[in-house]
Amino acid sequence: MTIETLEDLFLHTLKDVLYAERKILKALPKMERRASDKALRSALSAHRDETEDHVVRLEEVFESLGKPARGAKCDAMVGLIDEAEGLMADIDDAGTMDAALISLAQAVEHYEIARYGTLVAWARQLGHPRAAALLKTTLDEEYGADKALSKLAEERLNPAA
Amino acid sequence: MTIETLEDLFLHTLKDVLYAERKILKALPKMERRASDKALRSALSAHRDETEDHVVRLEEVFESLGKPARGAKCDAMVGLIDEAEGLMADIDDAGTMDAALISLAQAVEHYEIARYGTLVAWARQLGHPRAAALLKTTLDEEYGADKALSKLAEERLNPAA
Repeated sequence: MTIETLEDLFLHTLKDVLYAERKILKALPKMERRASDKALRSALSAHRDETEDHVVRLEEVFESLGKPARGAKCDAMVGLIDEAEGLMADIDDAGTMDAALISLAQAVEHYEIARYGTLVAWARQLGHPRAAALLKTTLDEEYGADKALSKLAEERLNPAA
Repeated sequence: MTIETLEDLFLHTLKDVLYAERKILKALPKMERRASDKALRSALSAHRDETEDHVVRLEEVFESLGKPARGAKCDAMVGLIDEAEGLMADIDDAGTMDAALISLAQAVEHYEIARYGTLVAWARQLGHPRAAALLKTTLDEEYGADKALSKLAEERLNPAA
């Protein structure tokens, strides 16, 4: 695919993010199974539910643009998930695994925050208000998920708090 | 390498980030050469200088821990850079390329923000105040670089502003 205009780039990035969300959806249950801390397990489970919503919302974005909702391989998310799986395979200790899972999930969240932030700005610039609103809803949820993980990490650092 | 403790995980993540910073250092000049907007070119160039400092600071972190400064392959950064190079190869138009470069640089920044945020928290928890201070300095610079890119993106959206 040759990308000539910002509209092409916007569509390409939507496809990239659709692929990424679907990949996260497959990875989250594996991460959930490796978590020992109850609060962490339920945070990962809640985020899986949200990720299902993100996929549906992206499909609505494609629909609002009159385009088919097709993913395109996102090398960055392939790398992020490879890294997560490699690290999970190297850890046995439950507490260390929980700390790793939080950090890996936050790395994924931050990638998504960057991408959705960009997509919202481009949707506005290109005059796609419906797409912009949908993408902004997901962006806010990604920020929320990252904050929840930071809170969990802090509580682990200060178990008495 | 088997990761048994949080200290092992901290050290592993430091190696991962050292590899990532070195990889970014190689990628930034290529991105700079593809940028047309003067302000974007100078932002990328300033970030390359900062990235050199980040590598030196990481070497100081390793030294403060009495460990050799060795990188370990970071699949996530390999994926992020593969994605950036693939996208750059698909774009000819100068304005579209500049928009893409900003978004790609922000995806990289956000990965680093996530990793340094985690490393600062772990360094504090593990009682490595010198490492924590060094890593926090870099974290603040990564936030600054991301903000500068957001500002550039906004100015492109509102050229009259």
